[in-house]
Amino acid sequence: MEGAFDKGDTVSKPAIITVAITGALPRKKDTPAVPVTPAEQIESTHQAFEAGASLVHVHVRAEDESPSSDPELFARVQEGIRKHCPGMIIQFSTGGRGRDQSARASMLHLRPDMASLATGSVNFPASIYENPPDFVEGLAASMLEHGIKPEIEVFDLAMLYNAAKLAKKGLIRGPLHVQFVLGIDNAMPARRSVFDFLRAELAQVLPDATWVAAGTGRFQWEVNRWCLETGGHVRT
Amino acid sequence: MEGAFDKGDTVSKPAIITVAITGALPRKKDTPAVPVTPAEQIESTHQAFEAGASLVHVHVRAEDESPSSDPELFARVQEGIRKHCPGMIIQFSTGGRGRDQSARASMLHLRPDMASLATGSVNFPASIYENPPDFVEGLAASMLEHGIKPEIEVFDLAMLYNAAKLAKKGLIRGPLHVQFVLGIDNAMPARRSVFDFLRAELAQVLPDATWVAAGTGRFQWEVNRWCLETGGHVRT
Ligand SMILES: [Zn+2]
Ligand SMILES: [Zn+2]
Ligand SMILES: [Zn+2]
Ligand SMILES: [Zn+2]
Repeated sequence: MEGAFDKGDTVSKPAIITVAITGALPRKKDTPAVPVTPAEQIESTHQAFEAGASLVHVHVRAEDESPSSDPELFARVQEGIRKHCPGMIIQFSTGGRGRDQSARASMLHLRPDMASLATGSVNFPASIYENPPDFVEGLAASMLEHGIKPEIEVFDLAMLYNAAKLAKKGLIRGPLHVQFVLGIDNAMPARRSVFDFLRAELAQVLPDATWVAAGTGRFQWEVNRWCLETGGHVRT
Repeated sequence: MEGAFDKGDTVSKPAIITVAITGALPRKKDTPAVPVTPAEQIESTHQAFEAGASLVHVHVRAEDESPSSDPELFARVQEGIRKHCPGMIIQFSTGGRGRDQSARASMLHLRPDMASLATGSVNFPASIYENPPDFVEGLAASMLEHGIKPEIEVFDLAMLYNAAKLAKKGLIRGPLHVQFVLGIDNAMPARRSVFDFLRAELAQVLPDATWVAAGTGRFQWEVNRWCLETGGHVRT
């Protein structure tokens, strides 16, 4: 895994293009094209892979389309992507929307290349995205045990410094990869000033880290443009 | 209340000096001087008032010294301060440590001059400081109803923009007073770069707001110095 990420301050190396299949929220009734079964997710990932994506962020869904933590579903998606998309980096979501806190780490024994790790709590549109300190440390320890590289998810500023503290404690191993998530209502807004400050602070507290920023919904393209302008990776 | 706060960018007017009596955490066994009964709190506030403090931030304690939301205790402290410290601004804490969410607004009918309003959730040292979106809006509505000026408590960056959104929705009325809280483990650190960014962003999104910054524990004096240097108010 090391070496798969170039430093954010060089633009000569190709950027990692991440594809996030399915996500936590959209349903077939809203977005008929959203892949929800493992077979649909594998095919959708394959298309993105052929179009140049090199990292896939995986959420899985139960039969009623609700967000799931079922290791069986993660295993099937992982197996299919490994077979159809050789060399693609597979990242499992440990995200919280609609998922039970106790189950969010239940698929890490499958040893994906990466898994997401939100290093703090913040308000989301209608509730708290709950990642209490001991839970974060438990997720980090499980990733370390299974040789999984975390993708640090920064939904609010404190999470950046929390990641640096985890690294200092030896609970996560560098060089880290950090994603700034901008534009979720009640969390950090998609403001250029915020984006610039996050990059400046990251360079101070985690100088070896690579980074990407994701704008949600209507902010997606603008934030992608900021990333390309400043040498970050790109998420679609 | 309006006019009690000068703009943060002028240093010619005297700064508001806030005293926070008791707080949420210290106990007599650790800090014998901490005032916990209403009588002790009134006397402690009176001493600060005579020394120049003009605003008091009030937490109350149950008989076992645990944090309380009992309106009876808030009423006694309020009555004593009004009597002994004429003109002092009284601010009730609606903070969460050790207090039941449903009870945190239960004393607002006493119409203190101000009350604290944290506009989001964040990790604290061992747990989540829980202020979900509907709870924040409910507290804001109660303050509006009772004519109480909120002190916006910013423990992480998103809370600043959330306050601006509440103001835009008419749920809080300006000019706002904002406190940046720096140095709580797992929340925003006491970094000068963070302090400077918060001030710059506040000037953009809430240009009429006054502000103060509080450094917790060992950061208190350094953050006070930053405030004085940059024209903010001071909290002790
Ligand atoms: Zn295929
Ligand atoms: Zn995700
Ligand atoms: Zn007295
Ligand atoms: Zn307080």
